[in-house]
Amino acid sequence: MLTPSLQDYLEEIYRLSIKSDEIRVSDIAEVLEVSLPSVVKALHKLNSRGYILYQPYEPVKLTEKGIREGKFLVQRNQLLKDFLRVLKTNSDIEKEAESMEHYLSLSTIQAIEKFYHFMKDNPDIQDRYDVYLQKTNENYIFEND
Amino acid sequence: MLTPSLQDYLEEIYRLSIKSDEIRVSDIAEVLEVSLPSVVKALHKLNSRGYILYQPYEPVKLTEKGIREGKFLVQRNQLLKDFLRVLKTNSDIEKEAESMEHYLSLSTIQAIEKFYHFMKDNPDIQDRYDVYLQKTNENYIFEND
Repeated sequence: MLTPSLQDYLEEIYRLSIKSDEIRVSDIAEVLEVSLPSVVKALHKLNSRGYILYQPYEPVKLTEKGIREGKFLVQRNQLLKDFLRVLKTNSDIEKEAESMEHYLSLSTIQAIEKFYHFMKDNPDIQDRYDVYLQKTNENYIFEND
Repeated sequence: MLTPSLQDYLEEIYRLSIKSDEIRVSDIAEVLEVSLPSVVKALHKLNSRGYILYQPYEPVKLTEKGIREGKFLVQRNQLLKDFLRVLKTNSDIEKEAESMEHYLSLSTIQAIEKFYHFMKDNPDIQDRYDVYLQKTNENYIFEND
Protein backbone atom coordinates (compact mmCIF):
# COMPACT_ATOMS: atom_id res chain seq x y z
CA MET A 1 0.00 0.00 0.00
CA LEU A 2 1.46 3.35 -1.07
CA THR A 3 1.49 6.34 1.27
CA PRO A 4 -0.87 9.20 0.36
CA SER A 5 2.11 11.20 -0.86
CA LEU A 6 3.39 8.42 -3.17
CA GLN A 7 -0.17 7.88 -4.41
CA ASP A 8 -0.28 11.55 -5.40
CA TYR A 9 2.98 11.17 -7.33
CA LEU A 10 1.80 8.06 -9.13
CA GLU A 11 -1.56 9.65 -9.92
CA GLU A 12 0.12 12.63 -11.55
CA ILE A 13 2.68 10.49 -13.37
CA TYR A 14 -0.20 8.51 -14.85
CA ARG A 15 -1.96 11.73 -15.91
CA LEU A 16 1.23 12.99 -17.53
CA SER A 17 1.73 9.64 -19.29
CA ILE A 18 -1.60 10.08 -21.08
CA LYS A 19 -0.58 13.48 -22.39
CA SER A 20 2.98 12.69 -23.42
CA ASP A 21 5.29 9.75 -24.07
CA GLU A 22 8.09 11.35 -22.16
CA ILE A 23 7.57 12.21 -18.52
CA ARG A 24 10.26 14.44 -17.07
CA VAL A 25 11.07 15.07 -13.43
CA SER A 26 10.50 18.79 -13.97
CA ASP A 27 6.96 18.15 -15.29
CA ILE A 28 6.08 16.24 -12.13
CA ALA A 29 7.63 18.93 -9.92
CA GLU A 30 5.64 21.60 -11.73
CA VAL A 31 2.24 19.92 -11.55
CA LEU A 32 2.63 18.90 -7.89
CA GLU A 33 4.32 22.15 -6.91
CA VAL A 34 7.20 20.43 -5.16
CA SER A 35 10.99 20.65 -5.44
CA LEU A 36 13.04 18.54 -7.86
CA PRO A 37 14.83 16.69 -5.03
CA SER A 38 11.44 15.73 -3.54
CA VAL A 39 10.34 14.31 -6.89
CA VAL A 40 13.59 12.37 -7.29
CA LYS A 41 13.20 10.89 -3.81
CA ALA A 42 9.63 9.78 -4.58
CA LEU A 43 10.68 8.38 -7.97
CA HIS A 44 13.33 6.21 -6.34
CA LYS A 45 10.68 4.81 -4.00
CA LEU A 46 8.18 4.15 -6.80
CA ASN A 47 10.98 2.55 -8.83
CA SER A 48 12.04 0.23 -6.02
CA ARG A 49 8.42 -0.80 -5.50
CA GLY A 50 7.93 -1.69 -9.15
CA TYR A 51 5.53 1.05 -10.24
CA ILE A 52 7.93 2.89 -12.52
CA LEU A 53 11.29 2.52 -14.22
CA TYR A 54 13.51 5.39 -13.26
CA GLN A 55 17.15 6.23 -13.52
CA PRO A 56 18.62 9.68 -12.89
CA TYR A 57 18.66 11.84 -16.03
CA GLU A 58 16.34 9.44 -17.84
CA PRO A 59 12.63 10.00 -18.51
CA VAL A 60 10.20 8.17 -16.22
CA LYS A 61 8.41 5.07 -17.53
CA LEU A 62 5.40 3.43 -15.91
CA THR A 63 5.46 -0.34 -15.51
CA GLU A 64 2.32 -2.44 -16.08
CA LYS A 65 1.75 -2.39 -12.32
CA GLY A 66 2.24 1.39 -12.32
CA ILE A 67 -0.25 1.86 -15.16
CA ARG A 68 -2.85 -0.28 -13.39
CA GLU A 69 -2.44 1.51 -10.06
CA GLY A 70 -2.11 4.97 -11.64
CA LYS A 71 -5.32 4.44 -13.60
CA PHE A 72 -7.10 3.31 -10.43
CA LEU A 73 -5.93 6.45 -8.59
CA VAL A 74 -7.02 8.79 -11.39
CA GLN A 75 -10.42 7.11 -11.71
CA ARG A 76 -10.94 7.17 -7.95
CA ASN A 77 -10.16 10.88 -7.87
CA GLN A 78 -12.55 11.53 -10.77
CA LEU A 79 -15.35 9.50 -9.15
CA LEU A 80 -15.05 11.42 -5.88
CA LYS A 81 -15.18 14.74 -7.70
CA ASP A 82 -18.27 13.59 -9.64
CA PHE A 83 -19.89 12.37 -6.44
CA LEU A 84 -19.21 15.65 -4.62
CA ARG A 85 -20.89 17.46 -7.51
CA VAL A 86 -23.97 15.23 -7.14
CA LEU A 87 -24.09 16.13 -3.43
CA LYS A 88 -23.79 19.80 -4.36
CA THR A 89 -21.22 20.66 -1.75
CA ASN A 90 -19.94 24.22 -1.67
CA SER A 91 -16.44 23.08 -0.82
CA ASP A 92 -13.42 23.19 -3.11
CA ILE A 93 -14.10 19.94 -4.95
CA GLU A 94 -10.51 19.34 -6.07
CA LYS A 95 -9.21 19.75 -2.55
CA GLU A 96 -11.99 17.73 -0.95
CA ALA A 97 -11.60 14.79 -3.36
CA GLU A 98 -7.85 14.89 -2.75
CA SER A 99 -8.31 14.48 0.99
CA MET A 100 -11.18 11.95 0.73
CA GLU A 101 -9.37 9.64 -1.68
CA HIS A 102 -6.71 8.72 0.85
CA TYR A 103 -9.06 7.83 3.67
CA LEU A 104 -12.04 6.04 2.19
CA SER A 105 -12.04 2.26 2.14
CA LEU A 106 -12.42 0.44 -1.17
CA SER A 107 -15.87 -0.77 -0.05
CA THR A 108 -17.07 2.80 0.34
CA ILE A 109 -15.52 3.79 -3.00
CA GLN A 110 -17.48 0.94 -4.57
CA ALA A 111 -20.68 2.04 -2.85
CA ILE A 112 -20.09 5.61 -4.01
CA GLU A 113 -19.54 4.40 -7.55
CA LYS A 114 -22.83 2.51 -7.57
CA PHE A 115 -24.68 5.40 -6.02
CA TYR A 116 -23.18 7.83 -8.51
CA HIS A 117 -24.30 5.64 -11.44
CA PHE A 118 -27.75 5.33 -9.88
CA MET A 119 -28.05 9.11 -9.78
CA LYS A 120 -26.78 9.50 -13.35
CA ASP A 121 -29.18 6.83 -14.60
CA ASN A 122 -32.08 8.54 -12.84
CA PRO A 123 -31.93 12.24 -13.66
CA ASP A 124 -35.43 12.72 -12.23
CA ILE A 125 -33.95 12.07 -8.77
CA GLN A 126 -31.27 14.69 -9.25
CA ASP A 127 -34.04 17.07 -10.34
CA ARG A 128 -36.05 16.26 -7.22
CA TYR A 129 -32.96 16.91 -5.12
CA ASP A 130 -32.48 20.31 -6.75
CA VAL A 131 -36.10 21.21 -5.97
CA TYR A 132 -35.68 19.88 -2.41
CA LEU A 133 -32.63 22.05 -1.85
CA GLN A 134 -34.54 25.15 -2.92
CA LYS A 135 -37.73 24.50 -1.00
CA THR A 136 -36.72 22.94 2.27
CA ASN A 137 -37.03 24.98 5.43
CA GLU A 138 -35.84 22.21 7.65
CA ASN A 139 -33.55 23.25 10.44
CA TYR A 140 -30.29 21.60 9.75
CA ILE A 141 -27.81 20.92 12.50
CA PHE A 142 -24.75 21.88 10.52
CA GLU A 143 -25.47 25.46 9.71
CA ASN A 144 -22.99 27.90 8.28
CA ASP A 145 -21.23 29.96 10.92
CA MET B 1 -9.20 23.85 15.58
CA LEU B 2 -8.62 20.66 17.58
CA THR B 3 -6.42 17.86 16.26
CA PRO B 4 -8.23 14.64 15.23
CA SER B 5 -6.98 13.00 18.43
CA LEU B 6 -8.31 15.77 20.71
CA GLN B 7 -11.58 15.75 18.77
CA ASP B 8 -11.91 12.04 19.57
CA TYR B 9 -11.35 12.73 23.26
CA LEU B 10 -13.89 15.54 23.34
CA GLU B 11 -16.42 13.47 21.39
CA GLU B 12 -16.19 10.64 23.92
CA ILE B 13 -16.24 12.98 26.90
CA TYR B 14 -19.45 14.46 25.55
CA ARG B 15 -20.93 10.98 25.08
CA LEU B 16 -19.99 10.06 28.64
CA SER B 17 -21.45 13.33 29.95
CA ILE B 18 -24.86 12.34 28.60
CA LYS B 19 -24.77 9.03 30.43
CA SER B 20 -23.38 10.21 33.76
CA ASP B 21 -22.82 13.40 35.74
CA GLU B 22 -19.37 12.29 36.76
CA ILE B 23 -16.80 11.62 34.04
CA ARG B 24 -13.70 9.85 35.28
CA VAL B 25 -10.33 9.57 33.59
CA SER B 26 -10.60 5.79 33.73
CA ASP B 27 -13.94 5.86 31.86
CA ILE B 28 -12.36 7.83 29.03
CA ALA B 29 -9.33 5.52 28.94
CA GLU B 30 -11.60 2.50 28.74
CA VAL B 31 -13.85 3.72 25.95
CA LEU B 32 -10.97 5.02 23.81
CA GLU B 33 -8.71 2.07 24.67
CA VAL B 34 -5.78 4.28 25.62
CA SER B 35 -3.55 4.57 28.69
CA LEU B 36 -4.38 6.76 31.69
CA PRO B 37 -1.33 9.01 31.11
CA SER B 38 -2.48 9.60 27.51
CA VAL B 39 -5.92 10.64 28.75
CA VAL B 40 -4.42 12.97 31.37
CA LYS B 41 -2.23 14.61 28.72
CA ALA B 42 -5.23 15.18 26.44
CA LEU B 43 -7.33 16.49 29.35
CA HIS B 44 -4.71 19.09 30.18
CA LYS B 45 -4.78 20.27 26.57
CA LEU B 46 -8.59 20.41 26.44
CA ASN B 47 -8.57 22.24 29.79
CA SER B 48 -6.08 24.85 28.63
CA ARG B 49 -8.13 25.43 25.48
CA GLY B 50 -11.32 26.01 27.41
CA TYR B 51 -13.30 22.89 26.44
CA ILE B 52 -13.28 21.25 29.87
CA LEU B 53 -12.49 21.97 33.49
CA TYR B 54 -9.96 19.48 34.74
CA GLN B 55 -7.73 19.11 37.75
CA PRO B 56 -5.86 15.94 38.65
CA TYR B 57 -7.94 13.60 40.84
CA GLU B 58 -11.11 15.56 40.09
CA PRO B 59 -13.90 14.47 37.75
CA VAL B 60 -13.94 16.10 34.31
CA LYS B 61 -16.49 18.85 33.60
CA LEU B 62 -17.38 20.16 30.17
CA THR B 63 -17.54 23.94 29.73
CA GLU B 64 -20.26 25.54 27.58
CA LYS B 65 -17.76 25.66 24.72
CA GLY B 66 -16.95 21.98 25.30
CA ILE B 67 -20.62 21.01 25.30
CA ARG B 68 -21.22 22.90 22.05
CA GLU B 69 -18.19 21.39 20.31
CA GLY B 70 -18.72 17.91 21.78
CA LYS B 71 -22.32 17.87 20.58
CA PHE B 72 -21.20 18.95 17.11
CA LEU B 73 -18.62 16.12 17.01
CA VAL B 74 -21.12 13.47 18.13
CA GLN B 75 -23.75 14.65 15.65
CA ARG B 76 -21.23 14.76 12.83
CA ASN B 77 -20.17 11.21 13.59
CA GLN B 78 -23.81 10.06 13.69
CA LEU B 79 -24.61 11.79 10.39
CA LEU B 80 -21.68 10.14 8.63
CA LYS B 81 -22.72 6.72 9.90
CA ASP B 82 -26.30 7.32 8.74
CA PHE B 83 -25.06 8.51 5.36
CA LEU B 84 -22.80 5.48 4.91
CA ARG B 85 -25.83 3.27 5.63
CA VAL B 86 -27.80 5.09 2.91
CA LEU B 87 -24.94 4.42 0.46
CA LYS B 88 -24.96 0.77 1.52
CA THR B 89 -21.21 0.43 1.84
CA ASN B 90 -19.87 -2.91 2.99
CA SER B 91 -17.14 -1.25 5.03
CA ASP B 92 -16.94 -1.11 8.82
CA ILE B 93 -19.22 1.91 9.27
CA GLU B 94 -17.88 2.91 12.70
CA LYS B 95 -14.31 2.92 11.43
CA GLU B 96 -15.14 4.63 8.16
CA ALA B 97 -17.12 7.43 9.84
CA GLU B 98 -14.26 7.87 12.29
CA SER B 99 -11.77 8.46 9.50
CA MET B 100 -14.12 10.56 7.33
CA GLU B 101 -15.12 12.92 10.11
CA HIS B 102 -11.64 14.35 10.44
CA TYR B 103 -11.09 15.08 6.77
CA LEU B 104 -14.36 16.37 5.36
CA SER B 105 -14.91 20.10 5.16
CA LEU B 106 -17.90 21.65 6.90
CA SER B 107 -19.40 22.44 3.48
CA THR B 108 -19.39 18.79 2.54
CA ILE B 109 -20.81 17.79 5.93
CA GLN B 110 -23.64 20.25 5.28
CA ALA B 111 -24.22 18.83 1.80
CA ILE B 112 -24.25 15.31 3.23
CA GLU B 113 -26.76 16.36 5.87
CA LYS B 114 -29.11 17.79 3.26
CA PHE B 115 -28.73 14.78 1.03
CA TYR B 116 -29.35 12.43 3.93
CA HIS B 117 -32.58 14.26 4.83
CA PHE B 118 -33.64 14.21 1.19
CA MET B 119 -33.23 10.43 1.13
CA LYS B 120 -35.06 9.99 4.44
CA ASP B 121 -37.92 12.23 3.26
CA ASN B 122 -38.18 10.26 0.01
CA PRO B 123 -38.24 6.56 0.90
CA ASP B 124 -39.29 5.71 -2.66
CA ILE B 125 -35.82 6.78 -3.82
CA GLN B 126 -34.12 4.53 -1.30
CA ASP B 127 -36.39 1.72 -2.55
CA ARG B 128 -35.39 2.45 -6.15
CA TYR B 129 -31.75 2.35 -5.13
CA ASP B 130 -32.23 -1.04 -3.48
CA VAL B 131 -33.82 -2.38 -6.68
CA TYR B 132 -31.04 -0.79 -8.75
CA LEU B 133 -28.37 -2.49 -6.67
CA GLN B 134 -29.97 -5.86 -7.25
CA LYS B 135 -30.65 -5.51 -10.94
CA THR B 136 -27.74 -3.63 -12.37
CA ASN B 137 -25.28 -5.46 -14.57
CA GLU B 138 -23.19 -2.44 -15.26
CA ASN B 139 -19.47 -2.96 -15.26
CA TYR B 140 -18.15 -0.99 -12.42
CA ILE B 141 -14.57 0.19 -12.36
CA PHE B 142 -13.99 -0.47 -8.70
CA GLU B 143 -14.60 -4.17 -8.50
CA ASN B 144 -13.76 -6.34 -5.55
CA ASP B 145 -10.36 -7.99 -5.81
